[in-house]
Amino acid sequence: MCGNSRRHQLIGIGVGPGSSDILTVRAVRAIKQARTVFCPKGKRGPGIAYSAAKEWIPEETPVIELDFPMITERNREEIYPQYWEKNAALIAEKLQEGDAVFLTLGDPMVYSTYSYITDYLNDQGIETENIPGIPSFIALANAVNVPLVQGDESFAVLSVTQDLDAIRETVREDDNLVLMKVSSRNRDVARLLREEGLTDHFICVSNLGSPEEEAFTDINRLEEKIPYLSTILIKKNYDFRK
Amino acid sequence: MCGNSRRHQLIGIGVGPGSSDILTVRAVRAIKQARTVFCPKGKRGPGIAYSAAKEWIPEETPVIELDFPMITERNREEIYPQYWEKNAALIAEKLQEGDAVFLTLGDPMVYSTYSYITDYLNDQGIETENIPGIPSFIALANAVNVPLVQGDESFAVLSVTQDLDAIRETVREDDNLVLMKVSSRNRDVARLLREEGLTDHFICVSNLGSPEEEAFTDINRLEEKIPYLSTILIKKNYDFRK
Repeated sequence: MCGNSRRHQLIGIGVGPGSSDILTVRAVRAIKQARTVFCPKGKRGPGIAYSAAKEWIPEETPVIELDFPMITERNREEIYPQYWEKNAALIAEKLQEGDAVFLTLGDPMVYSTYSYITDYLNDQGIETENIPGIPSFIALANAVNVPLVQGDESFAVLSVTQDLDAIRETVREDDNLVLMKVSSRNRDVARLLREEGLTDHFICVSNLGSPEEEAFTDINRLEEKIPYLSTILIKKNYDFRK
Repeated sequence: MCGNSRRHQLIGIGVGPGSSDILTVRAVRAIKQARTVFCPKGKRGPGIAYSAAKEWIPEETPVIELDFPMITERNREEIYPQYWEKNAALIAEKLQEGDAVFLTLGDPMVYSTYSYITDYLNDQGIETENIPGIPSFIALANAVNVPLVQGDESFAVLSVTQDLDAIRETVREDDNLVLMKVSSRNRDVARLLREEGLTDHFICVSNLGSPEEEAFTDINRLEEKIPYLSTILIKKNYDFRK
């Protein structure tokens, strides 16, 4: 660090579900003003967050892809922090040049890797702020044109990476549910939906907003291989098969 | 209806929590192109959804305020549909002139009056589509800079207008919770937070994004009169008083 340089700020930006016009006006303005744009590296080249925002990134702005590998090994809880710390150090270094933005799919406060990085930066006295984005489950309800929640109802959002009994309990409790990260356990989820009598009460949407978007309500389809970015909406008081 | 006129479309637009730059680019474009803008009438004059969007409404576009009164009587379940039907009829009439937008605070699929109107329009063969907006609970998490949900966690969003025992059960089940419409039962909620040992684990935000915005973590403050637009975030693994 140069002794006298003002510490610049990192802005976490939610770019929404993937379409370039589903960013907020505030997000577009911040992207245009940023000295540096950070985004998570995709499997092959720049990731989906970058693709959603690229229309708004000035040609001369450097874009830095950060590596957050998907780790399936048991010791991932130990490995992940190494990547968070390493990427935070790189961001801190670049912030000496000016304010930067960090692009995150959906919203920065909802299942986002960005939310782990900020702890490291805040510990160094670096300020972070956020610009909200449309989470995938909100985009999904709008796309299928079915209210997520009305009146006195409640809803729950859960990751199916957690324990199956915990998922079952939540599914029994709530009338409206969103299951995230479904692709890793699509068969378990299909079995659970059958056992709980919910085969007519779900819709699964994959690759929302992209040319590969697919929506289905057939429980048999759910047992086949489904795309990585798939989300399920369950509504007990709504018949998706009607 | 004129026999030959094409049926135009109604677009439900989520204008987000209230700031004019938290609308999406797609929402701004649709507002600029609309033949008519509908919005819910506020207590005194145009409501908050209109205020959030007015910067983007062309001067020559007619803005029609629809009356959706707050009914506290017991027979409100019978009275509400009369207003929905009446407002839907007015919208259907205006759609003969061209496509229209319906502005809704937050998101059209989350606790929105708009989602009741569409049934009446769809029954008449009128198409509706939606443009998502940032829900208040997403804006809240971003404003206080605390992740709503991470990793394998889940979260629940509930209206405190429902039965208090049901609220207590959900509060016990989930690590991350959002309580909506808190102002009507702030003392009940405060008692529940005390009884469940959660006095250090909540933040209440009122009038988010407006000049009257107020955030507090003091349980005693929650027992006083709080503003109508107040939302509580509970995180059991986070100390808001630290």
